[in-house]
Amino acid sequence: MTVGRDLSALFAPASVLLVGATPDTLKWGGWVARSFGQSTERFRVHFVSRSGGDLYGIPVRTSVAEVGEHVDLAVIVIPAAGVPAAVEQSLALGAKAIVVVSAGFGEVGEEGRAVQEALVAMVREAGAVLLGPNCLGLFDADSRLNVYGEEFPIGDVGLVSQSGNLALEISLLLSGIGLGISRFSSVGNQADLTIADMLRDLAVHDATKVIAAYVEAPADGEDFAEALREAAAIKPVVLLLSGRSEGAQRAAASHTGVLAAESRVIRAVARDAGAAVVDTPGGLVDAVSVLRLGRFLRGSGIAILADGGGHGVVASDALADVGLAVADLTPTTLAALTPHLGNVGPQNPVDLAGAGESDMWNFHHLTETLLAADEVDGVILSGYFGGYQAYNPAAGDREVQIAKAIAASAAKAKKPYIVHSMLERTGTETIDVLRAHGIPVFSRIEGAAAALALARTPAPAARPQAGLVGADPLSTVPAYPEARTLLAGLGIAFPAGGLATTPAEAAALASSVGTPVVLKAVAAELLHKTDAGGVLLGVASPESAAEAFTTMKERVETSAGLVLDGIWVEAMAAAGGVDLVVGARRDRLFGPVVLIGVGGVFVEVLDDVVLAPAPTDAGHLAALMRTLRAYPLLAGARGQDPVDCDAVAAIAVRLGDLLARRPEIAEVEINPLRATAAGAMALDARIVCE
Amino acid sequence: MTVGRDLSALFAPASVLLVGATPDTLKWGGWVARSFGQSTERFRVHFVSRSGGDLYGIPVRTSVAEVGEHVDLAVIVIPAAGVPAAVEQSLALGAKAIVVVSAGFGEVGEEGRAVQEALVAMVREAGAVLLGPNCLGLFDADSRLNVYGEEFPIGDVGLVSQSGNLALEISLLLSGIGLGISRFSSVGNQADLTIADMLRDLAVHDATKVIAAYVEAPADGEDFAEALREAAAIKPVVLLLSGRSEGAQRAAASHTGVLAAESRVIRAVARDAGAAVVDTPGGLVDAVSVLRLGRFLRGSGIAILADGGGHGVVASDALADVGLAVADLTPTTLAALTPHLGNVGPQNPVDLAGAGESDMWNFHHLTETLLAADEVDGVILSGYFGGYQAYNPAAGDREVQIAKAIAASAAKAKKPYIVHSMLERTGTETIDVLRAHGIPVFSRIEGAAAALALARTPAPAARPQAGLVGADPLSTVPAYPEARTLLAGLGIAFPAGGLATTPAEAAALASSVGTPVVLKAVAAELLHKTDAGGVLLGVASPESAAEAFTTMKERVETSAGLVLDGIWVEAMAAAGGVDLVVGARRDRLFGPVVLIGVGGVFVEVLDDVVLAPAPTDAGHLAALMRTLRAYPLLAGARGQDPVDCDAVAAIAVRLGDLLARRPEIAEVEINPLRATAAGAMALDARIVCE
Repeated sequence: MTVGRDLSALFAPASVLLVGATPDTLKWGGWVARSFGQSTERFRVHFVSRSGGDLYGIPVRTSVAEVGEHVDLAVIVIPAAGVPAAVEQSLALGAKAIVVVSAGFGEVGEEGRAVQEALVAMVREAGAVLLGPNCLGLFDADSRLNVYGEEFPIGDVGLVSQSGNLALEISLLLSGIGLGISRFSSVGNQADLTIADMLRDLAVHDATKVIAAYVEAPADGEDFAEALREAAAIKPVVLLLSGRSEGAQRAAASHTGVLAAESRVIRAVARDAGAAVVDTPGGLVDAVSVLRLGRFLRGSGIAILADGGGHGVVASDALADVGLAVADLTPTTLAALTPHLGNVGPQNPVDLAGAGESDMWNFHHLTETLLAADEVDGVILSGYFGGYQAYNPAAGDREVQIAKAIAASAAKAKKPYIVHSMLERTGTETIDVLRAHGIPVFSRIEGAAAALALARTPAPAARPQAGLVGADPLSTVPAYPEARTLLAGLGIAFPAGGLATTPAEAAALASSVGTPVVLKAVAAELLHKTDAGGVLLGVASPESAAEAFTTMKERVETSAGLVLDGIWVEAMAAAGGVDLVVGARRDRLFGPVVLIGVGGVFVEVLDDVVLAPAPTDAGHLAALMRTLRAYPLLAGARGQDPVDCDAVAAIAVRLGDLLARRPEIAEVEINPLRATAAGAMALDARIVCE
Repeated sequence: MTVGRDLSALFAPASVLLVGATPDTLKWGGWVARSFGQSTERFRVHFVSRSGGDLYGIPVRTSVAEVGEHVDLAVIVIPAAGVPAAVEQSLALGAKAIVVVSAGFGEVGEEGRAVQEALVAMVREAGAVLLGPNCLGLFDADSRLNVYGEEFPIGDVGLVSQSGNLALEISLLLSGIGLGISRFSSVGNQADLTIADMLRDLAVHDATKVIAAYVEAPADGEDFAEALREAAAIKPVVLLLSGRSEGAQRAAASHTGVLAAESRVIRAVARDAGAAVVDTPGGLVDAVSVLRLGRFLRGSGIAILADGGGHGVVASDALADVGLAVADLTPTTLAALTPHLGNVGPQNPVDLAGAGESDMWNFHHLTETLLAADEVDGVILSGYFGGYQAYNPAAGDREVQIAKAIAASAAKAKKPYIVHSMLERTGTETIDVLRAHGIPVFSRIEGAAAALALARTPAPAARPQAGLVGADPLSTVPAYPEARTLLAGLGIAFPAGGLATTPAEAAALASSVGTPVVLKAVAAELLHKTDAGGVLLGVASPESAAEAFTTMKERVETSAGLVLDGIWVEAMAAAGGVDLVVGARRDRLFGPVVLIGVGGVFVEVLDDVVLAPAPTDAGHLAALMRTLRAYPLLAGARGQDPVDCDAVAAIAVRLGDLLARRPEIAEVEINPLRATAAGAMALDARIVCE
């Protein structure tokens, strides 16, 4: 576990300085001034503004130097040009934390970036930390420090965001369901303090029970991944990630001034770190409401307790849409449900159909039975519960008591139990009680199902050390024989073959490896040998091989304008099995990433691949392969034997290790990798060096 | 246009009778009694109950006969056993509409079904209509007739539902966004009045501006489809459909006592009728809020007006997720935006970034510019708008004025304009004003995007008359030659071939059609000739054909235990092109349905097919083919020429016509249909008769 940076001056200062204080509460400096002015009992407050005078009973100094005493935290809200001097003077007063709200630095171009770098150097030199620039402040519920335009609801959600306005939306949505913020920071340009730093801080922040983050572009991908793993090992982490679409990528680049992370890579990183990923502020808040309890699904079997048939039907679809299943209840469970049901027999969805009206305690009896069932990993109660008070005021107290009993049973069972109530939007005492006792309540079944699905968040993937890999130095553009030698050295099987430099050698090789053979033109400069006519399959005899040598050499050398090193002659693999693409490449942000896909149309047309950051392990990759849409082909569709996915995964692991150990390699790809029931064999390979 | 049934006695009765009235307002009869008791100024009210006495100042008769005067509507809420007598007596009083709330009829088995059928016969004989049994009543906003347990919000949404509780949820969700119900009915078992009847009624019901329906299983698929087409031609229709998952299908069957509609067929029917389809009550209400204005997207280019960079990024992804695009703005539009922007340049998403604070009217200026742009089909405003009142009370009035101006501009432009406001949940005057002026406001961007996507709802597909099709009588189990003759008669091309009954004939046919040839064993009883070894590809010479004739005949006759009619010898199609599966089958509910998929793994593993109810037209099918995941293969992936999709679609149309014209045919399938740039040819075909 990395020791995080000391952020006590940032979140719990004994004294604060606001540079750019103003009485105008429509300006940022006015909001913060008002917030500080109302907090003088909590920390000593200093204001600086060229206008002087006083504000909220506090004298306003006309320069930082004039403050003349130690400050812990300096908040700077003045035009960019004045920021470096203000930072320097604040550090001179002993500030250990600086927040630069002002924009106009790294996000506006090279010049701004240089100024920003100088600021960071100055701050680090002083042993301080810098939040921003171009950020929207921070909030700490415990110290009541609020460097932001709005009040935050107080709660146990730790939030870090690359967008100030999204943080505001998230806090409003949290507030709407009775949750709130323990600590918040807007990281802006991440010039010094990064999202990773904030994740490490929130991981050890006691008041934070769950971490939420809006991330467009981590400052340092590998450090971010490491911090994410560390944090997710301590408490639930939910990431709101954007950039799945080209439009969003473009918008993010203009928003933060840096390229957003490649969507599927950062998602693979998050998944392997054990974090949940959502797409919208609403989804974030839904997920947080379920995950903050730390109750996870052990499997995907859900019991639906439906207040009417239609709700059971719609909930079943909603669960299936997010990959959860309506659990098959055992005869024992069904028998135990029966006494508490109305005119519909026991089944899943459990249809109360009047049983709630006849005795509202049936809600609790059925809950207990379902939670006790081994085959039930979680429960959704969907329908009118929460509204019986409105329907029958006399029954109100009873409904509240039942809500408490349900919450107690769910806490005891340690299984996710969530409620979809049609009265959520109206609000009722029962719903407040459910929430206060740790039962998330949703207004929409689709939101309930999506959040419940995130409670499946898998354990983080193992991060093995990269294994040893062959160490022969590579040429900058290794041709097939060199790539093959390197990969064969990692224990990856190739068909027998060798390099022919004359027709006679080609014939001899065809004889020795056995026909039919494949011929491949070899030259370092020949990047796309298939396109250049440099691959010939199914050459049936040594004579044909000799003949083909001559014609291929002439054709390729003429069309590509180069001289071949020779032609590789290789035994042709038997038909059958499934051809895959397996590779590893170096992501700009996150380093080595392994990729596995089923070849042919699946990769070309459907982009059906799984990714994982390397180094990784084979068991994890084999599990990921089961999420491929083309997986039925691997599992033995069309009467074939299932292919050896473990062998494929083991090869992918070695490719990931290769990139992790050999910084000169940018990319390695085996395409196709012929997978059969008996193992996997590389039929072609390509390595690209940096 | 079918003339709907007269439902005036049902929705606007001058006199009503409640059989099963009770003072206990926790029972259905008690709710309805209270509702009727409060409506005596609107219609004459009669109560019947064995207990007698009086209720809400109205005498309670102990039998229906005792009422002794004409009633328009009788509502029956007593145990099933007493219902037939109550219905008979109500009809004797002249009732023209009967609502049977009571359960225990068609949904509980054969005996109940017989009683239900007798009820229907009795009601129809009397020239009356029956709603139910096993239903949860109805509501009419104009007459204030409420045969339901709850108050409904009043508005312009006409609702019909197969679940009473889902209808309640829908009404609560509508109420939460300032919308309401014009007319509602719970159709229960649809013994007499069906969903189709209610769609026809709502289509011509003036107070209804948009129709919403929850449908599990239409009573009569073809009538439902017809009613849906009729209704959707008059006003927007949104269907909440369930049954996408196996769990939901099972739950629906137990809920309504009948098999739910096959999900993808009813979705194809809805799409071709021009109705929008949603999956949840929340989605229904979102869609209704957008579609009720009758403003549709002409294309998929959306402008995002984002109150902050993060909101633009997240909105871009949300649009892409539902198949909408961030519109490419022209230089003219970009230039027109510039004067109204802050420190971020013009682009889409349009990032206000402070422009709203500096002059809130910029929201309207930008709105007008975007709505005026030809390349913009609709606009989403996402972020803080609606909340400036809270941030700056002095600006409140201005925000309301701007909201009105935005609404006026959107109405004038007739383009969808929707707002995602982070203050929606809190509620503000601005949000109320937006809604009152026809601008839907969402609390979540994903809901806003999904609803906007439904405003693309395509024009209904044409419903051509089925074309003439070959009329030779078919044997019950036609073998390949017979199927081929029939389909060739429809103008569908097959390779040259003929039936050989001896090895010599096989050789002669191979000579005449040209080698290589394909051999196919022919016998009416041979349903799976490939499995039985009855297909041989690539027979290279007449001699091999003769030889193969003998071995295939012996092998198939032995393994399948039958005598072959002979062996079909057919020219083998050249390699290349894409193999598709094209067919038509008769759906249990909806009649003939056409299916097109790309063959091989796409159909087997990915179930990647499009469906359309027949008869249909080729242009529509060709457009649907573009939604196949495998479509890139048809469009010319891998350097191939694009295939002739129109030719494929034309063949599918003929197969649909065949089923529409020939009731004895249950299913026809061409698999594979080899599609190339030059057209399409059937390489095998199968017909199944009823």
